[in-house]
Amino acid sequence: MSFGGIEAGGTHWNCAIGDGTEVEHLETFPTTTPAETIGRAVEFFAAVPDLEALGVGLFGPVEVSPDSPRWGTITTTPKPGWRDVDVVGPLAEALGVPIALDTDVNAAAIGEWRHGAARGLDTFVYVTVGTGIGGGVFAGGRPVHGLLHPEIGHMLIPHDRARDPFEGCCPYHGDCLEGLASGPAMRARWGRPAEEIDDPAAWELEAEHLAHGLANVVLVLAAERIVLGGGVGRAPGLIERVRARLPEALAGYVDVPRLKDIDTYLVPPSLNERSGVIGALTLARIATSR
Amino acid sequence: MSFGGIEAGGTHWNCAIGDGTEVEHLETFPTTTPAETIGRAVEFFAAVPDLEALGVGLFGPVEVSPDSPRWGTITTTPKPGWRDVDVVGPLAEALGVPIALDTDVNAAAIGEWRHGAARGLDTFVYVTVGTGIGGGVFAGGRPVHGLLHPEIGHMLIPHDRARDPFEGCCPYHGDCLEGLASGPAMRARWGRPAEEIDDPAAWELEAEHLAHGLANVVLVLAAERIVLGGGVGRAPGLIERVRARLPEALAGYVDVPRLKDIDTYLVPPSLNERSGVIGALTLARIATSR
Repeated sequence: MSFGGIEAGGTHWNCAIGDGTEVEHLETFPTTTPAETIGRAVEFFAAVPDLEALGVGLFGPVEVSPDSPRWGTITTTPKPGWRDVDVVGPLAEALGVPIALDTDVNAAAIGEWRHGAARGLDTFVYVTVGTGIGGGVFAGGRPVHGLLHPEIGHMLIPHDRARDPFEGCCPYHGDCLEGLASGPAMRARWGRPAEEIDDPAAWELEAEHLAHGLANVVLVLAAERIVLGGGVGRAPGLIERVRARLPEALAGYVDVPRLKDIDTYLVPPSLNERSGVIGALTLARIATSR
Repeated sequence: MSFGGIEAGGTHWNCAIGDGTEVEHLETFPTTTPAETIGRAVEFFAAVPDLEALGVGLFGPVEVSPDSPRWGTITTTPKPGWRDVDVVGPLAEALGVPIALDTDVNAAAIGEWRHGAARGLDTFVYVTVGTGIGGGVFAGGRPVHGLLHPEIGHMLIPHDRARDPFEGCCPYHGDCLEGLASGPAMRARWGRPAEEIDDPAAWELEAEHLAHGLANVVLVLAAERIVLGGGVGRAPGLIERVRARLPEALAGYVDVPRLKDIDTYLVPPSLNERSGVIGALTLARIATSR
């Protein structure tokens, strides 16, 4: 009996087969057109004879409410070609197995909650900083969906234009958190991709913006832990800089021991790049046990 | 069989006796010293012969985790005389009944969720704007506690000092949401109390700051509804201004019908000034049914 999981991100898809915990077989391909990308996933899973269920962690915004007629459809994404695309429908039709769906970041949060750095916590956030900034949010030991799902990357934060005149690059909000601190924001501000930036001042500014956003996560959600992942989020030295700046941003207001132990409060994902795909496998297993 | 409820706020305490839904008897007195204030509450409830349980909605930050040895103790409040004060201990000792505790804003949220404007919602926020700014947060149909409890009033928001040179009045963060938009912030910025301010520009600025904060509530928590209460929050005309500005702040990114119907998305409390005390009575009833 096999489960399938897709971490269906905006830049690449990871497709995995496994027992819900261990990844037995993994294939990664870039997110191109919807038809081609979904087609490759169908091809990968159609070859599994005993596929029981599929878990999908999909980039968003995406309709994740099972009550909605648009369940499984990507909505207002700025990604060309993907707006209003039904992703789950074609997968279900081609594969004929039950599908469990959540956002890509909630899937990563589920992975870290079940098997990783947030094991068993009641309330926490998995934040990914890369092409965009997203967050999987848990409260009461369950992923939060609410109105649609959280979109923490777009939160509005202080922006001192005297020190950081960069306008921000979010097509919706300009200088929201994602507009100021995503990978594309770093590239636009400094003229080269994040992985080629070694100026400490650039990383200090990045840490400052992230610390403001994470302070709001502490204040709005009272997260017991924050897991910081993603291509930029896991850049060497960044988490240490954010750990130094987050308590400054909170200025001692939230006075609890857990937050003072900042090295265990703000942590990297312990499943590394597999949080999302392991979370997707977990979703598939949960789907069949209902 | 009677239940007792205290909305123990930073400016006044409302003590009520009732059956958990209706308030049968209500007494309000100012929050003075801990000994005097707690003493008046004890006196009020000691006169109830069949008191079954007491629900307390307490101003914070307050330790609400039943596992903590400091359960029921106020922590880092800037309110003189109240820091590190155990409120629940003396009440329990004097009255000898089970006590259920939450924050004052969670109590108000519980009241609105059980009997008011947020009835039966899964994920919503009750925001009060008055002496301070606070929020009771529900996710998954339950109040969120997490690390301690949410402190949404202290979230960091954009502040354009060219248009609003006021530095903010939060002793911890300066120009956090509370520092820019609480009642004391309005008084400090305009030189008179909020209820005497009739300049539309002042209220537009107030609405703008609040809309930034509430946009972050939408983005971080995906709240299905926001209830806006408190002395300043319920000022005539303010909610209409915030309703106009919140969609601007979100810039169309969260594209769901529920949010487009802004008059039912952002609403006043339907229990008016009794949300907190009715929530406290509800807490007492829940405590005895466990």
